[in-house]
Amino acid sequence: MNATKAFAAQSSTSPLAPHDIPRREPQANDVQIDIMYCGVCHSDIHTARNEWGGTKYPCVPGHEIVGRVSAIGSNVTRFKVGDLAGIGCLVDSCRECDNCKQGLQQYCDNGIVGTYNGKTSDGTPHTFGGYSKQIVADESFVLHISDRLPLAGVAPLLCAGITTYSPLRHWKVGVGHKIGVLGLGGLGHMAVKLASSFGAEVTMISHSAHKEADAKRLGATHFLLSSDKGQMNKALKTFDFILNTVSAPHDYNTYLQLLKTNGTMICVGAPIEPAKIPSFSLIGQRRSLVGSLIGGIPETQEMLDYCAEKGITSDVEIIPIQQINEAYERMLKGDVKYRFVIDMQSL
Amino acid sequence: MNATKAFAAQSSTSPLAPHDIPRREPQANDVQIDIMYCGVCHSDIHTARNEWGGTKYPCVPGHEIVGRVSAIGSNVTRFKVGDLAGIGCLVDSCRECDNCKQGLQQYCDNGIVGTYNGKTSDGTPHTFGGYSKQIVADESFVLHISDRLPLAGVAPLLCAGITTYSPLRHWKVGVGHKIGVLGLGGLGHMAVKLASSFGAEVTMISHSAHKEADAKRLGATHFLLSSDKGQMNKALKTFDFILNTVSAPHDYNTYLQLLKTNGTMICVGAPIEPAKIPSFSLIGQRRSLVGSLIGGIPETQEMLDYCAEKGITSDVEIIPIQQINEAYERMLKGDVKYRFVIDMQSL
Repeated sequence: MNATKAFAAQSSTSPLAPHDIPRREPQANDVQIDIMYCGVCHSDIHTARNEWGGTKYPCVPGHEIVGRVSAIGSNVTRFKVGDLAGIGCLVDSCRECDNCKQGLQQYCDNGIVGTYNGKTSDGTPHTFGGYSKQIVADESFVLHISDRLPLAGVAPLLCAGITTYSPLRHWKVGVGHKIGVLGLGGLGHMAVKLASSFGAEVTMISHSAHKEADAKRLGATHFLLSSDKGQMNKALKTFDFILNTVSAPHDYNTYLQLLKTNGTMICVGAPIEPAKIPSFSLIGQRRSLVGSLIGGIPETQEMLDYCAEKGITSDVEIIPIQQINEAYERMLKGDVKYRFVIDMQSL
Repeated sequence: MNATKAFAAQSSTSPLAPHDIPRREPQANDVQIDIMYCGVCHSDIHTARNEWGGTKYPCVPGHEIVGRVSAIGSNVTRFKVGDLAGIGCLVDSCRECDNCKQGLQQYCDNGIVGTYNGKTSDGTPHTFGGYSKQIVADESFVLHISDRLPLAGVAPLLCAGITTYSPLRHWKVGVGHKIGVLGLGGLGHMAVKLASSFGAEVTMISHSAHKEADAKRLGATHFLLSSDKGQMNKALKTFDFILNTVSAPHDYNTYLQLLKTNGTMICVGAPIEPAKIPSFSLIGQRRSLVGSLIGGIPETQEMLDYCAEKGITSDVEIIPIQQINEAYERMLKGDVKYRFVIDMQSL
């Protein structure tokens, strides 16, 4: 049985995909996943609402996908039907550039294929994401998911988890380091959990005093109230790292001043307006301002395995798909602890 | 004979210092240097003209100082009368903070004492720099100067040299690295000489086509004309490092795009306006934007010794002090190859 036939047997009569959403014709190297949970990322809102421009409709967002393999192509070796599987922010890349060869597919020189709104070569107009019953992707971009953790809490690891895990590993954050995490949302709460699990001394930096108890429950040792000038002055030059997860416009310089000599601010949020960086904020203390984007496939697998071993998941609020628009509005107000996850049984 | 007396014998009747410039009363740990050459740095202009604010008058600029020891205090052990000696951008620091203890005096937590316009505790209103016949400073901040190099060309190493040497060493730039040097002035020409001496493949990035021959003479392998869109497009994502020596306002983003994944832009210039950094310029390729300030005393000595061994000096145009105002005007037009140095015999 060739791959197309194998898929055809299971998908040609599928009632699962909305009729107006073209379906990826499975290839020999593809895995078909029946989606159980899909996390809701801020990027979903930006794309659904075309806030970044370039959205192609119909648009199916979702790139924090966990489910179970329901079919495999003839060449697939890494998955079998019934396996738990996950898909994150990308479903393909050129595979030939230096970055791809090093497993840094997220920085592919020829551009990644995003899990949704991405360029395709499979006959569909563009890729469709995880707010769906099924997804089909090349096995090289599919992750193994442990059965040791609650799956709804695993889904956000595919974006919020790897986005914070990757820079913490790349810059070797761990024992002996003081790190401030800026912003307690989907990314920030994962950053607190992961950085503290790596042995770093974590401070949550927030302008909302009421977040202190929760930040400490998540693993922060300290809480720095950014609206308190006294606390902020005392914190000048005290951090080795700041992991900046904020995507709203903000004053980078205020937080750069909190870094020690040789300190590093890692940015994973993406405000639309450019950051304004006074030269002396970097030069005066040999500081670094750096950015990091999700993670490559090997590192995403490493992160998932690490989280399974350490029992780390995202704090989630599970919703049915029918509440997605309300969830978007609540996310925009920061009213979620800390990630909405859609239960796809509701679709 | 105590230190004060030792100094008094040589300085009380000195005709060298202008009558209206208060003189540092020498201490037991001080070295008195008869200045032979003093380089002219852009900071001198900014300070002399109070462009950064905070200039205290009378102002004597100059922090690229080379001369010969003419007296030493009673506790001085590292210098003797007749030694060549140099002073760079700082003449003291707190000596107690972590940075000072690590030899990173330039990042002193309590603030450095600049060679000019700096705070003093010696009875003078503020420090006076190297456009002078003599300078007195604590031996801990005085550098040994080799007699193997032409001294006029050594003077600029004390600021332009160490400002470029320090970050190149800190970020371990060397064999196998492609580095772009942005800006061919006092700092830039030293960056080309030093980076190429460390084995890096150096590209001069400039909007002035006529600088190509000189850049290559200084050690650059390639020349990238930044006004040529075709050349710039071809250079996208090709550099491991860019050493940005530009202090005039400029678009950082244009040059960040030239960095490979994991590439680093090192800023040593200090434009007055904040740099505008689009988040995706860093995040999209895990790039770093970093700053570096001169160097500490141990590293400055290391740099001087390295340059003596390798025969590296600044390209200089020697002027009498009477031409200093004309020199300032020419510097503002970029009309110097590549550093003015004052012959203090002319004073």
